[in-house]
Amino acid sequence: MGNSVIIVDWGTSSFRAWLIDEETGRVRDSIAEGRGMGALDTREFPAYFDECLGAWRARTIPPPVYMAGMVGAAQGWQEAPQPPLPVTIREVARQTVPVSGADDVWIVPGVRVAADPPDVMRGEEVQIFGALALSGGQDARFCLPGTHSKWAHVANGALVDFHTSMTGEVYAVMLGHSILGRGLEESAGENSAAFQLGLEQADRSGGLLLHLFTARTRVLFGGLPLTAVRSYLSGLLIGSEVRAMAELTPPDGKELLLISATALREPYQAALTRAGYRCHWIDSGAATLRGVREVIAHHRQQEGRAGTDV
Amino acid sequence: MGNSVIIVDWGTSSFRAWLIDEETGRVRDSIAEGRGMGALDTREFPAYFDECLGAWRARTIPPPVYMAGMVGAAQGWQEAPQPPLPVTIREVARQTVPVSGADDVWIVPGVRVAADPPDVMRGEEVQIFGALALSGGQDARFCLPGTHSKWAHVANGALVDFHTSMTGEVYAVMLGHSILGRGLEESAGENSAAFQLGLEQADRSGGLLLHLFTARTRVLFGGLPLTAVRSYLSGLLIGSEVRAMAELTPPDGKELLLISATALREPYQAALTRAGYRCHWIDSGAATLRGVREVIAHHRQQEGRAGTDV
Repeated sequence: MGNSVIIVDWGTSSFRAWLIDEETGRVRDSIAEGRGMGALDTREFPAYFDECLGAWRARTIPPPVYMAGMVGAAQGWQEAPQPPLPVTIREVARQTVPVSGADDVWIVPGVRVAADPPDVMRGEEVQIFGALALSGGQDARFCLPGTHSKWAHVANGALVDFHTSMTGEVYAVMLGHSILGRGLEESAGENSAAFQLGLEQADRSGGLLLHLFTARTRVLFGGLPLTAVRSYLSGLLIGSEVRAMAELTPPDGKELLLISATALREPYQAALTRAGYRCHWIDSGAATLRGVREVIAHHRQQEGRAGTDV
Repeated sequence: MGNSVIIVDWGTSSFRAWLIDEETGRVRDSIAEGRGMGALDTREFPAYFDECLGAWRARTIPPPVYMAGMVGAAQGWQEAPQPPLPVTIREVARQTVPVSGADDVWIVPGVRVAADPPDVMRGEEVQIFGALALSGGQDARFCLPGTHSKWAHVANGALVDFHTSMTGEVYAVMLGHSILGRGLEESAGENSAAFQLGLEQADRSGGLLLHLFTARTRVLFGGLPLTAVRSYLSGLLIGSEVRAMAELTPPDGKELLLISATALREPYQAALTRAGYRCHWIDSGAATLRGVREVIAHHRQQEGRAGTDV
């Protein structure tokens, strides 16, 4: 049996972990839904880490742990400063930070754009390099939807540019705290006609501040059912993101790699196809796993520890 | 002494009232800061109305009351259905609704756009007609910034079109409930350099969802002080509104009438001037007073009650 290694994706709202075989990548065990950092006090991070991973690490020489995501932010467990673009996966591996007081536990840093305006990501960089490895190429453009959606460009194996849109957060905040959420029930099914109408509204002129208000006026006077507001707003915001990004990086006929959880696959594929993109979907969990494995391979080599048997 | 009439501007977050001389418009008394409807239970509206206006109405024949604003919405005191565009002030007066169970108390209806998408306003219509009367013209374009900013067009004395942007609400909601408000103190002074930077960011490509995130990344890596985030976000959002509206109704060399409270005068003038508009500011309180007076004059005439002495 080969060495084990533990991969953790620890973000503000989620914690996922995998115990894998370092050489084959086979998943030996996994934790699908742990607690995100937002649900914990900063001082609880080490204890929660032990609680989740203690059993996997109960060896004479515990398997190394590599963590990606907001765990390396200033408000995370320990800050891992982000190297500026352009960045290769080798550089990410080189900048990986040991967690002080822990044995062979590492935080993969994010990356940042050191331009005006600056930009920043933590966690998506390993998904990008993972998806690149899965696709077998060295050049690609990426869309990673979410709370803070990222559009990224890799050339010759290096991440050379990316942009962030607050799509998911604006969706949650407007539904939870603005007039748009008024009268909404806790949950309602998806409404594909309303989603489509949202995409169409986003293509009109007037800007997002105007489009948002139509999610209210269409309920008052346009026949939009209250149960369809979430789907409509989702179409509006995803459509607005894609439309604006299409101005920055127009469809070029090549495949755009869409990295997301299953839930966002269909809505983004619909919006991207509508905007003229050809896209290929890659599951974000698979991309994370593969990306961190790639980081680990480089990092163990850089540390001169590759192949050490436990 | 001429007849008295009471004018009320009752919105979600504010209540203002004036006791005026019907003929001269002279203000005899006023209430500057009452409670908005959002701070009251629906059943409390009549009692709060009496509490505020009881002393002014304590006559054998109480002076008539005309109320504008969200008081006429479905969630207000009593719904006053909005006539569709195009609408003249005569039509607004004709559609004014008596409050049932109250003596000579009227709600001025809002107006709506019966197109796709629909749009709606309540309260701004009287400010528009008031500002038109104050300006002495019959044709003008208007910008009325606020929680839900309105851009409107009046031709031959009729309100023919308008658009709403959720500028003020997005500002409040993002500061109060998103990552952009993280670490902010309750209040901070205005920072004109940050406001200007926000205006400049809004002129770039990438869309509002991208621009919003720069309010975070500029703090992390761009040297924007936390105390300047409010001003920066204000510049971003006002700039985005003006930029999008300028696509719909480009500057035509004529004066744009800016109707606002004092606090929004300077930021909007800066954004409008930057976008190429010539603008003339009119205080929103003065516009409301004059607008409702115009409505009253038409309404009393229509009701055959003009000039009745109390």
